[in-house]
Amino acid sequence: MFSGYYTSRVHDLWPRDDDALDDLARYALLPHGKLLRPRLLLLCVAALDGDLAQAAAVAAALESHHTASLVHDDLIDGDAERRGRPSVHARYGTGQALLAGDALLCRSFAEVAECHRHGVAPDLLLDVIALAGLTGVEICRGQLLEERLRRDLACGLDAYLAMVTMKTAALLSATCRTAALLSGADEETTTALTVYGETLGIAFQMRDDLLPYRDAETVRGAGKPLSSDLRNGRPTLPLLLAVERALPRQARRLRRLFARAAHSARARGRLTTLLHELGAVEAATAVLESYVEKARAHLDHLPATPHREQLHRLTYAMGTG
Amino acid sequence: MFSGYYTSRVHDLWPRDDDALDDLARYALLPHGKLLRPRLLLLCVAALDGDLAQAAAVAAALESHHTASLVHDDLIDGDAERRGRPSVHARYGTGQALLAGDALLCRSFAEVAECHRHGVAPDLLLDVIALAGLTGVEICRGQLLEERLRRDLACGLDAYLAMVTMKTAALLSATCRTAALLSGADEETTTALTVYGETLGIAFQMRDDLLPYRDAETVRGAGKPLSSDLRNGRPTLPLLLAVERALPRQARRLRRLFARAAHSARARGRLTTLLHELGAVEAATAVLESYVEKARAHLDHLPATPHREQLHRLTYAMGTG
Repeated sequence: MFSGYYTSRVHDLWPRDDDALDDLARYALLPHGKLLRPRLLLLCVAALDGDLAQAAAVAAALESHHTASLVHDDLIDGDAERRGRPSVHARYGTGQALLAGDALLCRSFAEVAECHRHGVAPDLLLDVIALAGLTGVEICRGQLLEERLRRDLACGLDAYLAMVTMKTAALLSATCRTAALLSGADEETTTALTVYGETLGIAFQMRDDLLPYRDAETVRGAGKPLSSDLRNGRPTLPLLLAVERALPRQARRLRRLFARAAHSARARGRLTTLLHELGAVEAATAVLESYVEKARAHLDHLPATPHREQLHRLTYAMGTG
Repeated sequence: MFSGYYTSRVHDLWPRDDDALDDLARYALLPHGKLLRPRLLLLCVAALDGDLAQAAAVAAALESHHTASLVHDDLIDGDAERRGRPSVHARYGTGQALLAGDALLCRSFAEVAECHRHGVAPDLLLDVIALAGLTGVEICRGQLLEERLRRDLACGLDAYLAMVTMKTAALLSATCRTAALLSGADEETTTALTVYGETLGIAFQMRDDLLPYRDAETVRGAGKPLSSDLRNGRPTLPLLLAVERALPRQARRLRRLFARAAHSARARGRLTTLLHELGAVEAATAVLESYVEKARAHLDHLPATPHREQLHRLTYAMGTG
């Protein structure tokens, strides 16, 4: 149901066929992805008995914000594919992708401000905007840290967690917090949902890290090039756990294969085998599952409703189930 | 006076010495430029007898927004210098410059939202945020049009004006409109200031277009590489007016020199001579002066105060005086 609302909203915001920017924006936004952030926001609002019509416009704005960050992220990482087709910069070039991301970002703030018209209280919207702005800064901070950790297999789990918390979890956390703000939740519930979103976001990134190492069936249709992490020299969770478990000889091999994996499919294959041998994929899966369970537990602060059940299901879907 | 406030505000917002993003943000924001937009906003607020303390924080946020757009613009244009030193991407690389711009943009919206604490009415701030967001979109639209007009000497003055209005004038217009909103001005004054800002912005771009063709003394210290327009194949006002005035043989020579000017300082020199011969520099100066005068006339809607006099001076300073 939200999918239809969202699609027509994108066409309302970027309507012109003969306009280069509207064209770019529609290409970036549609066909849409899983709409995880809007769905999460709406489920939380429903669970808190908030106003769903008011929340829908904010949810759509969050998706613009998120899409802007994906467009720029693909540009930085040189990822040529997104959702099974050319990414914005691969299709339109660097300059246009940069401008598309900027425009989506700016529009998303205007979208939230305009929710005033849908009857959301102005001071509440200002809180949502301040949160979105600061979250955008956190995401950049996380991406910068990611740059710094590039090719660094010795960075350790703490640095990894700090990076993931800012880069990925911050927006999911802000999404859930926004739901609480819009629904007028009390402070305890607001904090619980904020932490829920953050924990879920960490799980989300860990799941993403694990995708290339799970069986082909699960992976097919993910629509992004699975070698992106390795091509970009990202120290993902399975790799970091492998480092912890490796004997000196294995660690040397791991570093060698990791260095070559950026350019060699063969090295990527061997690296995958080594990770399985070291039990790192299994260990990463266990860590992921622990975050999923931690996230779910935070939902106990919500009243027991069918919407909370749906949130449980969404949370478990982050696991490898 | 604003300079000191602004500098300490930047340090408050981006305080950490050991943080990569704070470091990037401070590099982009300080030492600051002419602070035209904040000064314009504050002068307009003063002229309307509004609250200057409240307006100062909004003015600083506008400068963040503007700086973000400069950082990305330099990246797109490959301009390696800004304010007499390496531009952000020249110093830190593409990825970090992209993230710095995104972070400044996001922070600027949060800055405006946080003005709630300084006592600005929430619904007013939402109007300012919506305006800033939509203006950000307009700027991107203008930059896209600029991309499309690249190397197109036959684009005509209408396309040039449309591009300039979005790329440069939109933010100056929004700046003056924001001042009117913050000061609770009536609709007529608000409209007059909006049009004033737009007209001033067009003059500002025309002045920038003319810089490389004015005498070296005036030009020295502008702190940006004066060949940028020609290197990027931009059809600036003097060039477009030269096209209008050229005989067929001169037009061919103009196109040839324009095509070579991107890579050859000698071609740039000859092109400059040709523009002077065609009277295009003089004609562009006359057009610029007419915009300056139009802009100034819109100030008649303001009460006659010393602040209005200062606005007159600021306006005339856009000319070649």
